[in-house]
Amino acid sequence: MVRIAIDAMGGDLGPRATVRGTVEALAANAELQVRLYGPREALESEFSRLPKRLGADAERLDIVHASSVIAQDMKPSSALRARRDSSLSMMLDEVASGQAAAGVSAGNTGALMALSRRALGTVAGIPRPAISTAVPTQQGGRCYMLDMGANIDASAQRLVEFALMGEVMARRVDGLARPRIALLNVGVEATKGTASVRHADALLKEMANINYVGFVEGDGLFSGTADVVVCDGFVGNIVLKASEGLARMLIERVQATFAAHWGSRVVSLLARPALLRLRRQLDPVRYNGASLLGLSGIVVKSHGRADALGFACAIARAVQEVRIDLPRHLEHELGQRAATAPVALDRRGSGVSPCAKTDDFNS
Amino acid sequence: MVRIAIDAMGGDLGPRATVRGTVEALAANAELQVRLYGPREALESEFSRLPKRLGADAERLDIVHASSVIAQDMKPSSALRARRDSSLSMMLDEVASGQAAAGVSAGNTGALMALSRRALGTVAGIPRPAISTAVPTQQGGRCYMLDMGANIDASAQRLVEFALMGEVMARRVDGLARPRIALLNVGVEATKGTASVRHADALLKEMANINYVGFVEGDGLFSGTADVVVCDGFVGNIVLKASEGLARMLIERVQATFAAHWGSRVVSLLARPALLRLRRQLDPVRYNGASLLGLSGIVVKSHGRADALGFACAIARAVQEVRIDLPRHLEHELGQRAATAPVALDRRGSGVSPCAKTDDFNS
Repeated sequence: MVRIAIDAMGGDLGPRATVRGTVEALAANAELQVRLYGPREALESEFSRLPKRLGADAERLDIVHASSVIAQDMKPSSALRARRDSSLSMMLDEVASGQAAAGVSAGNTGALMALSRRALGTVAGIPRPAISTAVPTQQGGRCYMLDMGANIDASAQRLVEFALMGEVMARRVDGLARPRIALLNVGVEATKGTASVRHADALLKEMANINYVGFVEGDGLFSGTADVVVCDGFVGNIVLKASEGLARMLIERVQATFAAHWGSRVVSLLARPALLRLRRQLDPVRYNGASLLGLSGIVVKSHGRADALGFACAIARAVQEVRIDLPRHLEHELGQRAATAPVALDRRGSGVSPCAKTDDFNS
Repeated sequence: MVRIAIDAMGGDLGPRATVRGTVEALAANAELQVRLYGPREALESEFSRLPKRLGADAERLDIVHASSVIAQDMKPSSALRARRDSSLSMMLDEVASGQAAAGVSAGNTGALMALSRRALGTVAGIPRPAISTAVPTQQGGRCYMLDMGANIDASAQRLVEFALMGEVMARRVDGLARPRIALLNVGVEATKGTASVRHADALLKEMANINYVGFVEGDGLFSGTADVVVCDGFVGNIVLKASEGLARMLIERVQATFAAHWGSRVVSLLARPALLRLRRQLDPVRYNGASLLGLSGIVVKSHGRADALGFACAIARAVQEVRIDLPRHLEHELGQRAATAPVALDRRGSGVSPCAKTDDFNS
C-alpha cells in the first residue's frame, strides 16, 4: 500500500475537485490509501454529493478534521507564522512523521513550498528547492521545466542544482538512460544571455556524468530537443502561464473557426470528440502535478485550476515518486556529486533554515 | 508615394521570401515604392523565377547592388566594425538620408538594431530602443509585447520607457484612446517579482496620462486584458519563442488528432480549409513585423522564418508607421514627459553613442 496525505482545501474548486479527484485516484489504484485534511463538515458534505457511493474504496480513505485553511493569497512569511492546525500544515506533518509517503495539495504554492521546507528539510544540502512540471513536446514526448516560480532570482549555482535535480528525476522517474539537460536562453551561443545562465553553462560543461546539451531557446521547450529545461522561477513561471493562456486561446479559436463557417458547422459536430481529446493535451499543466524538487520528502502541487481528473493526476504523480523513492536518489546522487566536485555544488545555506526569501514564491 | 528601403538578404529563405514579399506588397499598395538592396545577380535571378512578370509595378521598384551581406550569426559588435557596403548597412543609409521613409529587413536582429542605432540615433534621448511585436488575443484583439530581446537586462527606468513607447504606438498606430499598459510579472500583487518590475510598477503608478493597469501574469498576454505588455528582453524573447513553438506543436496535434482516428479522417478532409485559416492566426509572429521602437526613424524587422506573405506584412507595417509618423509622436510625447517629469525619465546615456551592450541583441 502507498499512503498519501492530502490537503483537500486548495485550488479554485476546493473539495469539489480534491474529493472527487481522490475518489477517482482510489478507484484507479487499489494500492492507494489516502488521508484527507480539511474541515470535516465541508469534506463530508462533498462526499455526500458524489454520484455514487464509494463502496469498498471507502476502507482506504479517512478524513482528519483541520480547523483552519491557508488562504490562497496568504504570503509565505505569514503562512510560516500561522497556527499549525491548517489542512496544509497538518498534511505536511503527516508526511514529516513518515506516516504518509507523500503529500498532495492544490493550495497556495508559496505557502506550500515554505511550509514543506520547514516540515521536511531538503536533500543533500540543497538550499533552495525548485518546482518542476512536465510540458508536452512534439511527437508525444514530455519535457520537464524547472524552476516554475519558487526562486525569482537564481544564481548560476542554483541553476546548476536545478539541472542536476531535473536530471535525476528524468532518469529515475521516466527511466531515460541519459536525459538531455538544457538551459533556457535567448540564443544558443555561449555569449548570449544573462551572467547567471552563461556561468551556469560553463559550470555544466565541466561536469561529468551529465548529458548537458547547452542552451535552448523558448521553442526548445516544446520541440523535443531536451528532456529537462532549466531556468529561474521568474522566467519559468511567466513562460508556463503564457503557454497555458495561449493554449486556451488556441482551443477557443479552433472551435470558433469551425463554428463560424457554413460548412464548418457540420465539421464542428463531427470534430467534437477529437477536439475534446485535444483539450487535455493542449492544457499541459492542469493535468500534470508539479513536483517540489529538492525536499527530503515527496510533495506534489496540483494546479490551482485543476478539476477532479487533474487532481487525480497529481496524486498519481506522487505515487510514482514514492515508488522510485525520488528523494533518496536525489540525496544519494547529489550528495556524491558534492563530495567529488565541491566547486560545482557549494554548501551555502542550510536546507532546513527559515526561508530567506519566502516572498519569492508564487502560486 | 511612400518609399521603403529593403534589405533583401536576410531571413531563412533570403531573396526567395523578400523578393516575392516585396512584389506582393507592391501589388497590394499602389502608393508603395521600394528599393531593394542585395547582390544584383541574386536578386535579378529571383525576379526571373517569379511566376508572372511584374508589369506596371516594376516602375515602383529598383535594385541597388550591395557587395556584402551581414551574416545571420555575426555579432552586433562585429557588424558595427564591418564594411559599410552590406545590404543591411546601405538600406539603413538610405533611411538615414531621408530618401526612404522606412527600412525593412528579415536579417540578423542584433546587427539590425546596432546599425540602426548608429545610422538613425534615438528619439527623445531614449538610451535603449526596444523591439516590439503584436500577439493575437482572445476575441480577436492584439497585444503589443516589448522588449522582445534587444535588452537582456532592463532597469526599472528602461521598463518605464518601454511602457511609454508602447503606449504611444498603441494609441497612434492602432487608434486606441487609452491603451491599457501592463508589466509582465509572476503575480499581480505589488510585492511580487524582481526589484526592477516592482520599482517600475511604483514609477508607472505615479505617472499622469497613462492607463497603467498594473502587473499581468503570463496568460495576460493572450487574455485581452492589456494592449501593451512590458518586460525585459530576456523574458520577452523566451516567452515569444516559446509561444511560437507551442503554436507549431498544437497545429501539428490538431492535424494528427484528426488524422489518427477512423471517423476523423473524413473530418480531416472537411476541416482542411478551416485548419489552413487557423495556421496563420496560430503563428502570431511570422505574420507581424516587429518594430524597432525608440529610433529616430522607422525600421521594421520581419521574422527570420517569414515567407513572402510574412515579409509583405512587415512592409505593410512599415508603411503604417510612416503614415502616422510614429517617431515624431514618440519624440514629441516622450520629450514632453521628460520635460515635465524628470524623475521618471532620466537622460542617462546618449541615443547615438556606440552600443554599450550590443551583444545583448538576439535574433
